[in-house]
Amino acid sequence: MSDSLRVGPGFSLADVDPASTPGFDGGKKAGARALAAGADELSDLQERLFADSLFGGRRSVLLVLQAMDTAGKGGIVRHVVGAVNPQGVRAFGFKSPTDEEKRHDFLWRVRKQLPPPGYIGVFDRSHYEDVLIHRVRGFSTPSQIEERYGLINDFESELVANGTTLVKVMLHISREEQKKRLTERLERPEKHWKYNPGDVDERLLWPAYQEAYQIALERTSTPDAAWSVVPADHKWFARLAVQRLLLDALRGLDLGWPAADYDVEAEKARLAAS
Amino acid sequence: MSDSLRVGPGFSLADVDPASTPGFDGGKKAGARALAAGADELSDLQERLFADSLFGGRRSVLLVLQAMDTAGKGGIVRHVVGAVNPQGVRAFGFKSPTDEEKRHDFLWRVRKQLPPPGYIGVFDRSHYEDVLIHRVRGFSTPSQIEERYGLINDFESELVANGTTLVKVMLHISREEQKKRLTERLERPEKHWKYNPGDVDERLLWPAYQEAYQIALERTSTPDAAWSVVPADHKWFARLAVQRLLLDALRGLDLGWPAADYDVEAEKARLAAS
Repeated sequence: MSDSLRVGPGFSLADVDPASTPGFDGGKKAGARALAAGADELSDLQERLFADSLFGGRRSVLLVLQAMDTAGKGGIVRHVVGAVNPQGVRAFGFKSPTDEEKRHDFLWRVRKQLPPPGYIGVFDRSHYEDVLIHRVRGFSTPSQIEERYGLINDFESELVANGTTLVKVMLHISREEQKKRLTERLERPEKHWKYNPGDVDERLLWPAYQEAYQIALERTSTPDAAWSVVPADHKWFARLAVQRLLLDALRGLDLGWPAADYDVEAEKARLAAS
Repeated sequence: MSDSLRVGPGFSLADVDPASTPGFDGGKKAGARALAAGADELSDLQERLFADSLFGGRRSVLLVLQAMDTAGKGGIVRHVVGAVNPQGVRAFGFKSPTDEEKRHDFLWRVRKQLPPPGYIGVFDRSHYEDVLIHRVRGFSTPSQIEERYGLINDFESELVANGTTLVKVMLHISREEQKKRLTERLERPEKHWKYNPGDVDERLLWPAYQEAYQIALERTSTPDAAWSVVPADHKWFARLAVQRLLLDALRGLDLGWPAADYDVEAEKARLAAS
């Protein structure tokens, strides 16, 4: 499944059907079963990653989630990442930058939230906002934005060199599905807090956002830090797809269990006598 | 159940049977079912807490876990706290203090890890180490330790005044159960990384630790920040009990859903036209 989601040369976002389920034959029920079946392996691999770090390993995994509003970033964090030990996760949501953050370069606040060795980091929005909303809204000049693609690639190369495996995911929903989900938020009082009038303002700029995503995906999908575009009109598929991407990333680290750095038999004897 | 676990006047740790299941009539299977049944409410209440904070609420919950090794602190984090959205959780494990931390007062590093409004914080070990291992091992003088009980009570009063609900839990296992669990770690190579020869060193000081706990529980179980002692020889019971304690704490906040601060009907019209 993962290969069919990867952004490579010639990629066109407009050609990805948000309602499709590439690489998976089943429907919603089979998808939920497959997600449940993968949860234990994900949890086990995270524990190996953590154990590895206690014995000097420097590896970590960073899941970067970008999407239009309502695409389901929060659901991914809860239903996919929620399967692993919370003590091994560093999840962070990036909001509009504070005044202090604005005084620094755009990667400053991102560096502070990077996962330590042994952890799975999750970014709900990220440094990519600085080439997405900034492009669409004109918060930065075209030359600033142009420069940022390169800065992002350099930054991510540095992360990879330091042991971080990047899993960059754009959740791709359709304009119609977004309307449905926003409408639901307005119709249910217990969902009102999730709705923001600004969501419609951004929605009205849909084509400009799609263009900004297309350019960002083209310019920053590198061999070491590839983007995956996950069709997200079906929440069950998006969750399964992100789980598979995380599983692939962790399997790729080929993590064993650390060997004891003490004398196991001697310890058994000490313990028995205690 | 929660009332029967609370540390009040005349409490005696030695009288708590680590294999008991106070306030729960069923066995392991019924306990697992009850835990699963409570997970959705816990998750729902945490979402309300988070929503509340977005609209100016200052409330948070802090779960403090203390225990002898192998008592199951990690399992609590994974199986109880794991039911809520990872983005609403700040879990932190306190290790031996670093040189920098040692140069500050003992609460300095703790203050840095407090949950922001809207979050559930989890401390795997805490400032209580400074009156537990410090007492047993003599890392601090008796007068320093004596002073700390008061400093801890003042600190926790301050947290409560600022909107934090404290859930302080000692997981109470028996010496025999600990031996069983440590033996298992030595017998299974994939568990070797969890074992530390120092665990047996501490184990040999069991009575001194029980005494240090007894004194700490007596001196720092205040009406606003009471301790609960959770019998933990049965993992399933300990998890259920901590879940109930968290549920009680969150229910006590009486959290509704925030009202919309925008015109719902006007937004429906804007959205429909978008």
